[in-house]
Amino acid sequence: MMRFERARRIRFSDCDPAGIVFYPQYFVMFNGLVEDWINDELRISYHDLIVNRGVGVPTVRLEAEFKVVSRLGDPVQLSLGVERLGSRSLTLRLRCIGERGDDDMRMSLRQVIVTTSLKTHKSIEIPADLRDAVARFAGITV
Amino acid sequence: MMRFERARRIRFSDCDPAGIVFYPQYFVMFNGLVEDWINDELRISYHDLIVNRGVGVPTVRLEAEFKVVSRLGDPVQLSLGVERLGSRSLTLRLRCIGERGDDDMRMSLRQVIVTTSLKTHKSIEIPADLRDAVARFAGITV
Amino acid sequence: MMRFERARRIRFSDCDPAGIVFYPQYFVMFNGLVEDWINDELRISYHDLIVNRGVGVPTVRLEAEFKVVSRLGDPVQLSLGVERLGSRSLTLRLRCIGERGDDDMRMSLRQVIVTTSLKTHKSIEIPADLRDAVARFAGITV
Amino acid sequence: MMRFERARRIRFSDCDPAGIVFYPQYFVMFNGLVEDWINDELRISYHDLIVNRGVGVPTVRLEAEFKVVSRLGDPVQLSLGVERLGSRSLTLRLRCIGERGDDDMRMSLRQVIVTTSLKTHKSIEIPADLRDAVARFAGITV
Repeated sequence: MMRFERARRIRFSDCDPAGIVFYPQYFVMFNGLVEDWINDELRISYHDLIVNRGVGVPTVRLEAEFKVVSRLGDPVQLSLGVERLGSRSLTLRLRCIGERGDDDMRMSLRQVIVTTSLKTHKSIEIPADLRDAVARFAGITV
Repeated sequence: MMRFERARRIRFSDCDPAGIVFYPQYFVMFNGLVEDWINDELRISYHDLIVNRGVGVPTVRLEAEFKVVSRLGDPVQLSLGVERLGSRSLTLRLRCIGERGDDDMRMSLRQVIVTTSLKTHKSIEIPADLRDAVARFAGITV
Repeated sequence: MMRFERARRIRFSDCDPAGIVFYPQYFVMFNGLVEDWINDELRISYHDLIVNRGVGVPTVRLEAEFKVVSRLGDPVQLSLGVERLGSRSLTLRLRCIGERGDDDMRMSLRQVIVTTSLKTHKSIEIPADLRDAVARFAGITV
Repeated sequence: MMRFERARRIRFSDCDPAGIVFYPQYFVMFNGLVEDWINDELRISYHDLIVNRGVGVPTVRLEAEFKVVSRLGDPVQLSLGVERLGSRSLTLRLRCIGERGDDDMRMSLRQVIVTTSLKTHKSIEIPADLRDAVARFAGITV
């Protein structure tokens, strides 16, 4: 599976009184990863998509497993792969791993995103440019 | 299923540029709900549990479904039920519903929590007072 | 000075790895307090103001002093008073105090808010109903 | 004034329903900037400082001015300079500017930080290595 990856350090603001990542913060991190993926890898302006084109990309389903805690200061790698590309939805596989790589899985996530109209919040077909770029990234023929 | 419930209004700080709840914010809301449940319903001090007794209650697994968006100002009800009480883990059912009640489900969540030592971040047996209080709440004989 | 007050418990999600309130979180709390004040005390729908009337209430200036830390579980009182009501701006005095009242000041804040058009993000005159309600609350003759 | 600078894009999670940065989020961004400055410029491990050495760096005073809104997708530059180095405190000047540089100031901040013991939350002398590194950065003879 082709993956988009970004390195990140666990920040003070990510952590809770136990000194480890407060789990909702992982979803904030991955939201940023998806944003970077769309902007920097797919070469589609996320800002333009949301603000000018009125296309939302809300999450409709997610399943997450938390294996090992991440602590303040830990260098981690966030990565994203595409599991499935539908006509109105996209299934992503996301994970956060530590310095020792695949043997150092902190948590992983399957997330289903749909494209919606931000006027109606109803699902719409994935815009063609986004769909083509995702297909190309994922090596899928559409 | 016995449920613990709290009313809440969707706040400005919960919402994203689409004017709807930013989904990680639901998990922050539910974290507060679990905190209130432990403090106010189970009558165990959450603060004391974490800070003085060194017991963590991290999430190890969650599955969430987002059905309908919640918007700024929406009155919602957050509720919590216990699906399973293990020796080291607890499975919760959480949901956010709108004004029209059960027909107005916004999102729901199954969340598995474990009790851990905050020194080692390893799982430990659920402390007896917490386990008894959860069993009593859920109508489970332990 | 007439004050609007709300009790609150310091939550897990408010706190940092030092076990105390992460200071930006105070501003999130006060944003919620202003929202409640407008909705519940001034009897003007905050949601309607923002979403339907397109009026923003951004902060243009703030000065904060942090005196004593607040810890996980602390019961605190948030309060708001109006220091000045201009034609386009509002100066608020906000504070967070602990259980022992005025002698237990945790932090305080002076905040200048302006009313803006959410289309242009330029300042506009405070809408008449909001201005009247603030004046009434603050005992100011306008 | 010597400055430490980092580029950043305004993210979805930074923004509010008005599509602009939710102001408490600026403080989260700057908290990250201070963290990067200590780690990457001063060459002192922030994580080690907090977790192993038990030194906190809470904010005791801040004054902020918000001039122009920042929007989703805006490339901005965060920068930090040292205004004053005391024996127990540090006064920082922070600012966020847009693409057009100094003429495109979004907001700026003066922030006073103290060093504390995380056991007592009382102020302590700035540790010598941190103080020396700050003095070197700021071109101050101590």
